[in-house]
Amino acid sequence: MYNLLNTINGPQDIKKLDIDQLKTLADETRQALINKISNAGGHSGPNLGIVETTVALHYVFESPKDKMVFDVSHQCYPHKILTGRKEAYIDPEHFSDVTGFTNPLESEHDLFTVGHTSTSVSLALGLAKARDLKKTDENIIAIIGDGSLSGGEALEALDYAGEYDKNLIIIVNDNDQSIAENHGGIYKSLKDLRDSNGTSDNNVFRTFGLDYRYLEDGNDTAKLVDALNGVKNIDHPVVLHIHTIKGKGLDYAEKNREAWHAGGPFNVEDGSPKFSGGSEDTTIFDSLKELLDTNDKAIVLNAGTPMGLGFTKDIREEYVARGQFADVGIAEENAVAMISGIAKNGGTAVFGTFAPFLQRTYDQVSHDLALNNSPATMLVLLPGVYGMNSNTHIALCDIQMFAHIPNLVYFAPTSREEYEQMFKYATTQRNHPTGIRALPAFPSTGVKDDTDYSVLKNKVERKGSEVAIFAVGPMLSKALETAENIEKETGKKITVVNPRFVSGLDEELLTELMADHKAVITIEDGELMGGYGQTIASFYGDKSMIVKNHGISRKFHTDFDPEQLLAEHGMSVEKLTAEVKELLA
Amino acid sequence: MYNLLNTINGPQDIKKLDIDQLKTLADETRQALINKISNAGGHSGPNLGIVETTVALHYVFESPKDKMVFDVSHQCYPHKILTGRKEAYIDPEHFSDVTGFTNPLESEHDLFTVGHTSTSVSLALGLAKARDLKKTDENIIAIIGDGSLSGGEALEALDYAGEYDKNLIIIVNDNDQSIAENHGGIYKSLKDLRDSNGTSDNNVFRTFGLDYRYLEDGNDTAKLVDALNGVKNIDHPVVLHIHTIKGKGLDYAEKNREAWHAGGPFNVEDGSPKFSGGSEDTTIFDSLKELLDTNDKAIVLNAGTPMGLGFTKDIREEYVARGQFADVGIAEENAVAMISGIAKNGGTAVFGTFAPFLQRTYDQVSHDLALNNSPATMLVLLPGVYGMNSNTHIALCDIQMFAHIPNLVYFAPTSREEYEQMFKYATTQRNHPTGIRALPAFPSTGVKDDTDYSVLKNKVERKGSEVAIFAVGPMLSKALETAENIEKETGKKITVVNPRFVSGLDEELLTELMADHKAVITIEDGELMGGYGQTIASFYGDKSMIVKNHGISRKFHTDFDPEQLLAEHGMSVEKLTAEVKELLA
Repeated sequence: MYNLLNTINGPQDIKKLDIDQLKTLADETRQALINKISNAGGHSGPNLGIVETTVALHYVFESPKDKMVFDVSHQCYPHKILTGRKEAYIDPEHFSDVTGFTNPLESEHDLFTVGHTSTSVSLALGLAKARDLKKTDENIIAIIGDGSLSGGEALEALDYAGEYDKNLIIIVNDNDQSIAENHGGIYKSLKDLRDSNGTSDNNVFRTFGLDYRYLEDGNDTAKLVDALNGVKNIDHPVVLHIHTIKGKGLDYAEKNREAWHAGGPFNVEDGSPKFSGGSEDTTIFDSLKELLDTNDKAIVLNAGTPMGLGFTKDIREEYVARGQFADVGIAEENAVAMISGIAKNGGTAVFGTFAPFLQRTYDQVSHDLALNNSPATMLVLLPGVYGMNSNTHIALCDIQMFAHIPNLVYFAPTSREEYEQMFKYATTQRNHPTGIRALPAFPSTGVKDDTDYSVLKNKVERKGSEVAIFAVGPMLSKALETAENIEKETGKKITVVNPRFVSGLDEELLTELMADHKAVITIEDGELMGGYGQTIASFYGDKSMIVKNHGISRKFHTDFDPEQLLAEHGMSVEKLTAEVKELLA
Repeated sequence: MYNLLNTINGPQDIKKLDIDQLKTLADETRQALINKISNAGGHSGPNLGIVETTVALHYVFESPKDKMVFDVSHQCYPHKILTGRKEAYIDPEHFSDVTGFTNPLESEHDLFTVGHTSTSVSLALGLAKARDLKKTDENIIAIIGDGSLSGGEALEALDYAGEYDKNLIIIVNDNDQSIAENHGGIYKSLKDLRDSNGTSDNNVFRTFGLDYRYLEDGNDTAKLVDALNGVKNIDHPVVLHIHTIKGKGLDYAEKNREAWHAGGPFNVEDGSPKFSGGSEDTTIFDSLKELLDTNDKAIVLNAGTPMGLGFTKDIREEYVARGQFADVGIAEENAVAMISGIAKNGGTAVFGTFAPFLQRTYDQVSHDLALNNSPATMLVLLPGVYGMNSNTHIALCDIQMFAHIPNLVYFAPTSREEYEQMFKYATTQRNHPTGIRALPAFPSTGVKDDTDYSVLKNKVERKGSEVAIFAVGPMLSKALETAENIEKETGKKITVVNPRFVSGLDEELLTELMADHKAVITIEDGELMGGYGQTIASFYGDKSMIVKNHGISRKFHTDFDPEQLLAEHGMSVEKLTAEVKELLA
């Protein structure tokens, strides 16, 4: 099955092959890829489309001397298979030997650890500048998908590449699809170029000052080898625009490109999922739908990840037609500035995307939104340890990033009902911008929350004495369980506080607690340093209150189990119970 | 002198004029502008160039119903003169009535408070989306300079505008100059368009999917009126590209566009400065020059503000020729990713720009640089209260932004000698990325610093007992003076600590202090919440040490005197002395 692939332990083995063998190698590489993704899940579509390109790249170029940067690395699996890591795709026992992203710890053929889009051209420009300083002559190659082109960092880099004057090869892997469909005017240029075999005058790359080549048959290994040989050792920046088929080799994936961008294990015969998905929490989508259906001046924006908000294709088409939903493409900066403008002109605007990608918008949140005090709402999806757990996608610093920005109110709901009331408050008031931490799943209290969130007040979930636990967002259940354990074991009632607001302190409550409490414990689902708990330690700094802050250490944690990571940082019910007991003793 | 201008109290008065009167109004507006900038300083070049456009805009459109967004607002002075604020330009007693940026608190004709570049098209798109939801029909106009086009946020917005399908007018005010010269491939397109009277096929705006018009005579009021009438009420997005003269009306400013971007008061006859500039601190430039002259693999990047690093035109041309200096244009995201790439490929890379603009790079610093642990260096210019003091340009949260990012070492030097040693360490080690807070001026200790900065250790500047003051960066002198006062007044010696590192704690020292200290005071030149001091409060939370944290409140402070703002937050020598005395009592 893998007769040829079994002989390939790195690029040096690929160079010995003839063109027919390269095609066979591509087929076997695709089989290995399908073996892994059908059994373990992963990014299907982008990797299936780039198999032939990767074979050709390693045939033509001399990695690691020549340096390849895979944008976002959603298309690096064939590269891993061909650079000594094939067992991780062939043998289930080795599936977990490699990550889903390029990783210098795995191979000298991987330059960077990346998981955010639109970075490859900038990183490659940096490699190229260093090469020039060293006076060496390697090729520098960025491989970027069409979807990633709309990100500001990529556009800045393409612009700068347009005045750079030495070797830089930018391979635009155009499968006519972002995660969902593409958005933005440059995609008309890409379409014109595909439709004209690269000859259209409507060429966005040339207007950025870049040389340009086109290859229609982006899954034809022989033609790819020719095209890559044509740009190898070129003495200036060039875009090689190749048209590939997303999901190539699996007809259901080729047909339904959005669904097959990434996913879980599936049956190869028909693409049916191997495991039925659990019932998804629809809290976020429900709140957005209700807003749009009851307020015709309301609009929801997203940036290339509509499914994160629950807006499937059918549903978003309906709201796009009503002018109430817009996907701005992978362009988070633009989305944040837009909601500021919408709010300023009387609309009700919500932008939601995944917490790690909101890192791109720090300046827009601070300067465009908060400085202007525009009453728009940001949904911060999957923040903290219960979010994504790859170091490329962790978001353990969302509180550090947003809580200190003036004017912005940042909420940490603990339940579906709290989220609903906070969202309602955020989208009906006109006084300030709001961020809401949107957990992957919200437990329900079963009781409608009717809190007035215009007033910064923490909620005392359990009133006791001696010790109080402040528990941010999803940490509340641990605090409540700890309190129950303590009551069972010692008969004593301790206090549990749900801060709800992480952008400021309820100083009245903090002062009250001093009357009959001697210690406060804080627990949060993100980094300790600069987090919520330390603001409480500061408040009590010159008062006779013991404060014990718990949060995650300052590190790019990866591939962790959330409960284990929390426990390692003192945040398991067991450890908290012991800690409280010691304080009570 | 201002015969016509004196009759203009708002756009309604402009609409009554004929074309000849509009030209006179433009001339008088320019005179008022020169009156203010020659006596009070400000952004000269961009405002001088946009006078006629602004007169024409207010003649053709119906502000505030029609909405104008001035990018970065370096070109909003004529707009202010024409919208009821002329006294602030004519009468020295009223000069300080208005800020240098658009400001909704001043006028209904100002939509946003802005001071960062590249935001106008996004903000305008937001206004337009809200208009569509409200089903009203106002024109939405973004006015953006050529220099701002290279920023990621602007490029993202132009791309999205290319698929938007309703009224949006983007006026590209092309004076062929950023702050310094422009950088990037799109500027070849702009040049081709200028050279061809807008007819070149090399049209970056069209490849973004945008309709396009060109006006060569961007300082001809009559032609501007025609051009603006031609796009008024248009039913889709359009770029009106106008060629203006930066510095128009002052021949020395027209000739030396970089020097006349902005500056202090000058003599109108010859442009000579009214006040001789004080001797500038050259610490930063000296360190960069030494690096480049002694390490031929080293390179310095900047993003559109080379003067911030002391690289005047002559000097930078020399280093550009050597391949050791590059201005990437206003494109900070690209710059940070590039230094990561340079470092990864063996080069020594430094990127420096002003602290508020580094806000744009949070994701690149975290994901592209720190996650990859690339040993590159960032110079954070003018951080904290001693930086710029407009709410559009404050940088009171640089510690919040950077200190918690894993792998990044963030230094707060207090003297020239410390800075020099930290910079030397940062640019010779290969273990981690480094940020250095670069103060507007560094005091000299007169003693070479030979500290080994590979080890996180705070410096005990004065050893005493009972009370210790931890003073971040420029706050050190206040702490030392306080300690001297205390010794004089009470005979007691207190401890003063210079943390040097703000990205982590010297726990050994903190533990030692517990032996003979009962209180720690922290002072820092930025926001209190999430800052350095709170990490110390957290460390001592469960120990018997009083901690008093001082920092600036969570607010967009503006137009402040640094010493006064610090004093209001407990950080004057007088207040600190009183606080220490109370603790000692």
